[in-house]
Amino acid sequence: MNRQTIISEIRKKKSYLCIGLDSDASKIPSHLLSAEDPVFEFNKAIIDSTHDVCVSYKINTAFYESNGLQGWQSMEKTLRYIPNNIFTIADAKRGDIGNTSTQYAKAFFQSLPFDSITVAPYMGQDSVQPFLDFEGKWTIVLALTSNEGAYDFQYLSTAEGSTESQELFKQVIQKVSSWGSEENLMFVVGATKTAQLQEVRQLIPNHFLLVPGVGAQGGSLEEVSKIGMNADIGLLVNASRQIIFASSGEDFAIKAREEALKLQHEMAKYLQSK
Amino acid sequence: MNRQTIISEIRKKKSYLCIGLDSDASKIPSHLLSAEDPVFEFNKAIIDSTHDVCVSYKINTAFYESNGLQGWQSMEKTLRYIPNNIFTIADAKRGDIGNTSTQYAKAFFQSLPFDSITVAPYMGQDSVQPFLDFEGKWTIVLALTSNEGAYDFQYLSTAEGSTESQELFKQVIQKVSSWGSEENLMFVVGATKTAQLQEVRQLIPNHFLLVPGVGAQGGSLEEVSKIGMNADIGLLVNASRQIIFASSGEDFAIKAREEALKLQHEMAKYLQSK
Repeated sequence: MNRQTIISEIRKKKSYLCIGLDSDASKIPSHLLSAEDPVFEFNKAIIDSTHDVCVSYKINTAFYESNGLQGWQSMEKTLRYIPNNIFTIADAKRGDIGNTSTQYAKAFFQSLPFDSITVAPYMGQDSVQPFLDFEGKWTIVLALTSNEGAYDFQYLSTAEGSTESQELFKQVIQKVSSWGSEENLMFVVGATKTAQLQEVRQLIPNHFLLVPGVGAQGGSLEEVSKIGMNADIGLLVNASRQIIFASSGEDFAIKAREEALKLQHEMAKYLQSK
Repeated sequence: MNRQTIISEIRKKKSYLCIGLDSDASKIPSHLLSAEDPVFEFNKAIIDSTHDVCVSYKINTAFYESNGLQGWQSMEKTLRYIPNNIFTIADAKRGDIGNTSTQYAKAFFQSLPFDSITVAPYMGQDSVQPFLDFEGKWTIVLALTSNEGAYDFQYLSTAEGSTESQELFKQVIQKVSSWGSEENLMFVVGATKTAQLQEVRQLIPNHFLLVPGVGAQGGSLEEVSKIGMNADIGLLVNASRQIIFASSGEDFAIKAREEALKLQHEMAKYLQSK
């Protein structure tokens, strides 16, 4: 899915909501557990009830891999069930030496036809490039993550040669943004780190940002939207647990829609001025 | 597998060789392609012919995920085929926020009963700790990788507060080593970076290091062994393509053994003095 389509879907739906299908098998409503594939049945119901209020689904691979083969199968079925007008993200945080990253790119762009994948930057350019080289696909690189551990390394003051020092996450954004374009590269910036979001926007005014951390992790949608939005919107804001586990009863899909709608209504407000 | 068992296996076999099962389905000898599971048949033959000369197998998940469901199945069958006295590594380079890393730990320590997993450090402590919390398992954190891209971020001069500045990979080693112990934590240090290996040993004299990059990537086994070995050996040196793809004919397993033996003989020499 190209940039222009993402933007027009956002405008059409008045939503830049990404729903994270962190479908932990142990948290799925009990009435689904007798199904042949409970995780897929759960995701299917969530997708049916929310696809018109979000523009993206993010599948976090960890929650599927932890179920082994069955989990991989649920992931594949879920991905293929998502309507074509929705931007799909493999939240896989992969990255390895060049020939190995190429294999990961094949895994998540070909074998599983995701639109995009999240990638960890630590191993540098040859670990990121193989993803960028896939025509028509997006690479979403971790810059500043939403978790507490982000403070361990991402904020370290770094210097290279005679350049002025800056935090590691800014080095990552600067270098990585020279490897791809606004048409195939996004960055992850956590909603819990709004103080830095403004600085991120100075470095990359035009790139799309994937923003996790609203909801269960405590980030504010209002702040993220005010600070992070650009003329092309430039934001995909993710919520996972808050939506998909809003209820553990038979009404889980209805409650999920209600939660998604709350966020979408708020988003529609912030979009008015754009 | 605990530290003492790893060390005694190394002494018994006179080998600290880890064989990387980077079993790229497109490179498998053609006579195996009619098998029900060519990748597993290939790995099985490699394991049969090399398990007495190595102490570890490293399964790089990328090469299996790129085959989708079938690949995941080949990985599981391969893992279960590896003899119990051999240390198994899921070279998966995972890492995510805490509750997600817990799912990855379940994937690679429970659903797939690996002894260890490689983990990327960028997201900090809560992304690494869930792996360390698994009793009897090992976490192998990326410090200085063997690829060219290592120069992009891992060598950046970093400072924190009033401490003296040092390269990022040293910050990673210092911080991460305080999260685990010599009994459950190893680091990846590429064989192509021997100039830094000595400094790594000053920071962590006792930890085991997983050293990729000998062979196809150009690292020297002699240098790595001279500089990196400690009183408990402290090294697992990996070779992948050089061994498993030594021949593309029907003799691939015989040739793989020959290549593995070359490395093992060299290792036996370096072990004599320990």
